[in-house]
Amino acid sequence: MLVYLVKVKVKEDRIEEFKEATVRNHRATVREPGNYRFDVLQSQEDPTSFTLYEVYKSEDAVQAHKETEHYLEWRETVAEMMARPREGIKHEVIAPREKAQW
Amino acid sequence: MLVYLVKVKVKEDRIEEFKEATVRNHRATVREPGNYRFDVLQSQEDPTSFTLYEVYKSEDAVQAHKETEHYLEWRETVAEMMARPREGIKHEVIAPREKAQW
Repeated sequence: MLVYLVKVKVKEDRIEEFKEATVRNHRATVREPGNYRFDVLQSQEDPTSFTLYEVYKSEDAVQAHKETEHYLEWRETVAEMMARPREGIKHEVIAPREKAQW
Repeated sequence: MLVYLVKVKVKEDRIEEFKEATVRNHRATVREPGNYRFDVLQSQEDPTSFTLYEVYKSEDAVQAHKETEHYLEWRETVAEMMARPREGIKHEVIAPREKAQW
């Protein structure tokens, strides 16, 4: 199991479009067999700062995600909405370890 | 509903103690009625960097958490394990919005 914390800084005038495209990606990603969560969050103090909380069963599941049509469409759609390149940091899960908790 | 993303930088020689104390806090926090998640993550590229992914029903639930014995004990226990003050950023949830997904 692994977690990607992806930080995205969006241009001020593209916030709503970014949300729409990312919610679409969320809906399709959570149906992937190797995905456990795909939460979309917006900072309260800076509405142009978003975090994607992506949890996958394995590295293979991450790879499978990156080959889906919905991911590739999202990546292309949001590219010009970002104020700078997004930054993804991979994490180990310390807790909870039980599959049923995800 | 709101999400706290809390970043913690731990002293290199206190990593294991920090994990133990934080897993104890996790176990008690997820039993609070207003808590939806309390995930403990460790960065793969920098094992001294941790993220707590804390999801609460409301601001009242956050306040209730801060008054629990397990939170107060955790805060005191880990204070000297941190290399710098922790940083918590509050987020709105864009997706998923359904309670059943948390």
